[in-house]
Amino acid sequence: MEYKFSGMARTQGSSIVRDILKLTQGTEVLSLAGGLPADAFFPVEAVAQAYERVFRLGGTTALQYGLTEGYTPLRERLTTMMASQGISVTRDNIIMTTGSQQTIDLVSRVLLDPQDTVLVESPTYLAALQAFKSYGANIVSVNTDSNGMQLDDLEAKLKEHQPKFVYVIPTFSNPSGNVWSMERRTGVVELCRKYGTLIFEDDPYGRLKFDENLNFPSLFSIDQQQGGDGHVMYTSTFSKTVAPGVRSGWLIADQAIVDKVAKAKQSADLHSSSIDQRALNELLDFFDLDGHIRSVSNEYHSRMLRMTTLMKERQWEGITWNDALGGMFMWVTLPEGFLSDRLLELAIQEGVAFVPGQVFYADLSGSNHMRINFTHTDPSLLPEAVDRLDRALKMYTEERLEKSVR
Amino acid sequence: MEYKFSGMARTQGSSIVRDILKLTQGTEVLSLAGGLPADAFFPVEAVAQAYERVFRLGGTTALQYGLTEGYTPLRERLTTMMASQGISVTRDNIIMTTGSQQTIDLVSRVLLDPQDTVLVESPTYLAALQAFKSYGANIVSVNTDSNGMQLDDLEAKLKEHQPKFVYVIPTFSNPSGNVWSMERRTGVVELCRKYGTLIFEDDPYGRLKFDENLNFPSLFSIDQQQGGDGHVMYTSTFSKTVAPGVRSGWLIADQAIVDKVAKAKQSADLHSSSIDQRALNELLDFFDLDGHIRSVSNEYHSRMLRMTTLMKERQWEGITWNDALGGMFMWVTLPEGFLSDRLLELAIQEGVAFVPGQVFYADLSGSNHMRINFTHTDPSLLPEAVDRLDRALKMYTEERLEKSVR
Repeated sequence: MEYKFSGMARTQGSSIVRDILKLTQGTEVLSLAGGLPADAFFPVEAVAQAYERVFRLGGTTALQYGLTEGYTPLRERLTTMMASQGISVTRDNIIMTTGSQQTIDLVSRVLLDPQDTVLVESPTYLAALQAFKSYGANIVSVNTDSNGMQLDDLEAKLKEHQPKFVYVIPTFSNPSGNVWSMERRTGVVELCRKYGTLIFEDDPYGRLKFDENLNFPSLFSIDQQQGGDGHVMYTSTFSKTVAPGVRSGWLIADQAIVDKVAKAKQSADLHSSSIDQRALNELLDFFDLDGHIRSVSNEYHSRMLRMTTLMKERQWEGITWNDALGGMFMWVTLPEGFLSDRLLELAIQEGVAFVPGQVFYADLSGSNHMRINFTHTDPSLLPEAVDRLDRALKMYTEERLEKSVR
Repeated sequence: MEYKFSGMARTQGSSIVRDILKLTQGTEVLSLAGGLPADAFFPVEAVAQAYERVFRLGGTTALQYGLTEGYTPLRERLTTMMASQGISVTRDNIIMTTGSQQTIDLVSRVLLDPQDTVLVESPTYLAALQAFKSYGANIVSVNTDSNGMQLDDLEAKLKEHQPKFVYVIPTFSNPSGNVWSMERRTGVVELCRKYGTLIFEDDPYGRLKFDENLNFPSLFSIDQQQGGDGHVMYTSTFSKTVAPGVRSGWLIADQAIVDKVAKAKQSADLHSSSIDQRALNELLDFFDLDGHIRSVSNEYHSRMLRMTTLMKERQWEGITWNDALGGMFMWVTLPEGFLSDRLLELAIQEGVAFVPGQVFYADLSGSNHMRINFTHTDPSLLPEAVDRLDRALKMYTEERLEKSVR
């Protein structure tokens, strides 16, 4: 029969990252497209032990229905973990989710009515754009440079649009890898307080620092230090520090927001896997997570350096990128007028994939950018990946030349 | 600060079941209110083994991001399981979810626009009503008796409302415990086909049969036998056959619907725990699920009989109930004019809880009904629970008498 789908179903785009994955699956294409952590560093043994403990210590309760807000001892533990990052909350400010994506969806659900405005960085996280769009939001980009959101433009747009919230990834952004300066962090917090606007701070990568002496305080902690009254919502996840498969993220916010999110979650899926949450809590009892994060970050750093060294050797004309200070992504800028989606077609022919920049912009600008993931591909394959990219770039430059001649 | 929540957040009710749980937590109240399976029968040892296998056999891939549609071998296995229940599909017709509640939420998301009508039984599952409401649906009750939805009323309402779908729990309903007759099953399928309306069949309890020779074909299988063209969506779960903690349910539907649900799920949480899904798949390799379901059902049957025997002994005047043929619930009807929510207040004072019937009706009728769960309370405590209920009933009858005298 013919189905009449809802407005939400009609606006939900397919993920380009997923489409690229499908396109490259089972082929010899080297994918720099996905946002996947390095499998080789998953602490499989420790995680296995943690699950074993769950069943040894209290299997019966682990298998029964649990609280929507999440496993209480894990929420308690998170208050301590977050305190070490300058965020001082009680467990009533924390709700566990099935990863950051669910946090984004539930926050959207309890805050966004159709036509409500959300301000975002330019570029910003693709799947957040899609989630906001599916709730009918009007998404407005704020001018963003390598230091973060530009304060004058943010202020103008706060005034003009009275947005429901400002969504930001201030540390090791997806896709740009950027880190906001202290001035911008403080400035955005102050402006949002001035205009009574919520900030939604997404921090999945913050702990993947390449220099552990660097310190990038969260907007949440800055707001708290200034005696803020709950206008920052903060989300993070274990996906990048332990592993994505444990499907566990969390939201930290004012209790009024957490309560609404809990009711939304109850309707959405009752609760996330309590087995996974209990296993995480057991794991954190005996596993040196900080040490693990340090060694994973060191490895990511060396992969990033390997990648940029290989790219520099090619001496590509007019192509620039940032040297990431952490996280999982590099942001490459092609010369003005280059279209990275056409380059991607040629790159896939040559056997390498990335994500074209355009999809990370609410206004679909940014067509001369590309996002490159440096964490997932085995380092031994990076020279081959860069060779293929080099061939695709040469083909593309020739193609452009031919067109301009005609 | 003051928060402006969305329309969705404002319509989401708190669950009365959850409120009762909170009220009774840490007290000596015996709760017949929850919809919990019996913990004592969870196959903890087998489940523990299954998780151990997951990490032994492929821990690394289990910990990486997985497919939104779910773990492929488990979806394959479900095609075989469902075939034995007369449902013939391929894995492309199946998507895994974080339990039935998420299936209900995602189906609502891709089908319901505000003001769309959903037809439901009267009474029906509370949390489904809440999910439909949160998407702005207009919920209309169809007259329902112990044989199922009444066909004349259904036809009148299909014509009048042109609903997006008809939501039904034909086997061991929550809350009523009822089983639809074959005539109603066939009739509803035929009527919905005639009017081009989708059926959403919720079947969490169907396998908990007290007489294993009984056979209640699903509306999905009836539609297929009649050469239907995909107008039944079917959902079930492992929550009641293995354990709720594994948080795994599934939707079976036409591929066009599954595709839309997959995109919605991608935006909602990327995917459900792949560790849990892999563990279930391992479990089903060596665990006698059919035998387990038989012994759990036998135990539930004997608990139900114990409960009804104790209730009969009290010789309550004008109070009736159905003898459930399976599932987890009894549906008790008090004399006309009795208000089960007032009775609940007295019952909690006496130390026993149930769910008042009203909450299961879209039109808030049914105030003289109550739902009693017979699966979760330890059988040794049932006499005490019924004694307390008896005292509450006596107090309530006296209270009514006093009021009518005044």
